[in-house]
Amino acid sequence: MEKRALLYEGKAKRVYQTDDENLVWLEYKDSATAFNGEKKEQITGKGKLNNEITSLIFSKLKKEGIATHFVKKLSETEQLVKKVTIIPLEVVIRNVAAGSFSKRLGINEGNPLSKPLVEFYYKDDALGDPLITDDHIEELQLATKDEVALLKEKALQVNEVLSRLFLELNIRLIDFKLEFGKDAEGNIVLADEISPDTCRLWDSNTNEKLDKDVFRRNLGSLTDAYENILARLGGPSHV
Amino acid sequence: MEKRALLYEGKAKRVYQTDDENLVWLEYKDSATAFNGEKKEQITGKGKLNNEITSLIFSKLKKEGIATHFVKKLSETEQLVKKVTIIPLEVVIRNVAAGSFSKRLGINEGNPLSKPLVEFYYKDDALGDPLITDDHIEELQLATKDEVALLKEKALQVNEVLSRLFLELNIRLIDFKLEFGKDAEGNIVLADEISPDTCRLWDSNTNEKLDKDVFRRNLGSLTDAYENILARLGGPSHV
Ligand SMILES: Nc1ncnc2c1ncn2[C@@H]1O[C@H](COP(=O)(O)OP(=O)(O)O)[C@@H](O)[C@H]1O
Ligand SMILES: Nc1ncnc2c1ncn2[C@@H]1O[C@H](COP(=O)(O)OP(=O)(O)O)[C@@H](O)[C@H]1O
Ligand SMILES: [Mg+2]
Ligand SMILES: [Mg+2]
Repeated sequence: MEKRALLYEGKAKRVYQTDDENLVWLEYKDSATAFNGEKKEQITGKGKLNNEITSLIFSKLKKEGIATHFVKKLSETEQLVKKVTIIPLEVVIRNVAAGSFSKRLGINEGNPLSKPLVEFYYKDDALGDPLITDDHIEELQLATKDEVALLKEKALQVNEVLSRLFLELNIRLIDFKLEFGKDAEGNIVLADEISPDTCRLWDSNTNEKLDKDVFRRNLGSLTDAYENILARLGGPSHV
Repeated sequence: MEKRALLYEGKAKRVYQTDDENLVWLEYKDSATAFNGEKKEQITGKGKLNNEITSLIFSKLKKEGIATHFVKKLSETEQLVKKVTIIPLEVVIRNVAAGSFSKRLGINEGNPLSKPLVEFYYKDDALGDPLITDDHIEELQLATKDEVALLKEKALQVNEVLSRLFLELNIRLIDFKLEFGKDAEGNIVLADEISPDTCRLWDSNTNEKLDKDVFRRNLGSLTDAYENILARLGGPSHV
């Protein structure tokens, strides 16, 4: 497999073309951003941690029969994935109130929800990734009604698998963000990453935050938190 | 009918108890507010205009078979309505992109939507009336799934009647906000007001704004605009 031209550089990853038109090469960067890019830092080791955590999680999802873009880990910071056309929606699944959800609705952070809740945000940095409704998605032609239903179903499925997985590691999956894309055959598959950058993960006993909130809220060492998650997932230790 | 104790004073109206426990007395005030109370002014004659416009519109809706709280106009600034328990949702119907919708989704103001779109905002001043999804409504127990479906249906019905009504007066109904409540028998009826405070109304020929945007955006005399609407609705002239 050959790494070819850079297709896109995002806030957390670079996407490269390969010699196979159906595959892209993802490179995880060491940059941390929050609040729509307002807070920004270079954090050595972060790219490696997120690549390894994402690779482990996507492998587990694959084993559970969930269709994903993941092909294989290539190096500490790189992975090979199916090339997809990303549906410009951030699909957020919440089990417990936290963050913007708590602020928006006036529900205390930490309050469990009566059942897992799926939200869609329009993936558009210029607009600040606004929350949108199913009808907005239809109006903007981001996805059809059937596709929205499918995305919700898939998101809840991923939530079941991951909530169970993390709970076994003594971690509560509070909420997380998914991205989906369409592959060459038009199938909708899970794409992007699943890492402490895109999840809220709280230690089940202490409620210690082991995710990007450590960076957003200046709670300590981000890499310590992410190393903790990686270690519990059975990944290689870097310390 | 006797006016009794003040039950609630809002930004635009006062609600009084009456000697009939199923009826309340609404008094329209002369205050204008926008941006969640940040911009505020006293505008002489505004209460009278909104009371008269709302009374005319609710009478027409009644004739079209739509269940509302409206009983009768009592004076220039007062009306008698069925007492309801307001469902804390602002039900917004949009035919054309404008205002916060345009900003949120990056759709130019004035762009017609492919079909009328219904949105729900959580009526909570402290939270700034945030946009919410059907799932948020269920989680917050603001209304059941069936009630949400009913609210959408009723909102679209009102939109059909009002769009036609205004178009006959050479006015485009761009968007508007409704509130619904439950009466003593548990029936969901249309409540609150429908006025240039709660609608975007553009002259069909000139696109002149004849609504609260005149106040929000400092476009001229609010009472001139509202008088214009009242006159076209066949109401009494005050000039
Ligand atoms: N399998 C894939 N094929 C193509 N693009 C992908 C795939 N998985 C993720 N992407 C996209 O790669 C880009 C880079 O990721 P990231 O740095 O997180 O970007 P962003 O700053 O937009 O969140 C994103 O636009 C993401 O949606
Ligand atoms: N039929 C009704 N019965 C009881 N309350 C009503 C009725 N119609 C409207 N209301 C409520 O009257 C209150 C006063 O109106 P308004 O001044 O517009 O208040 P706000 O500042 O909350 O928008 C609002 O809470 C509104 O929901
Ligand atoms: Mg990203
Ligand atoms: Mg009001």
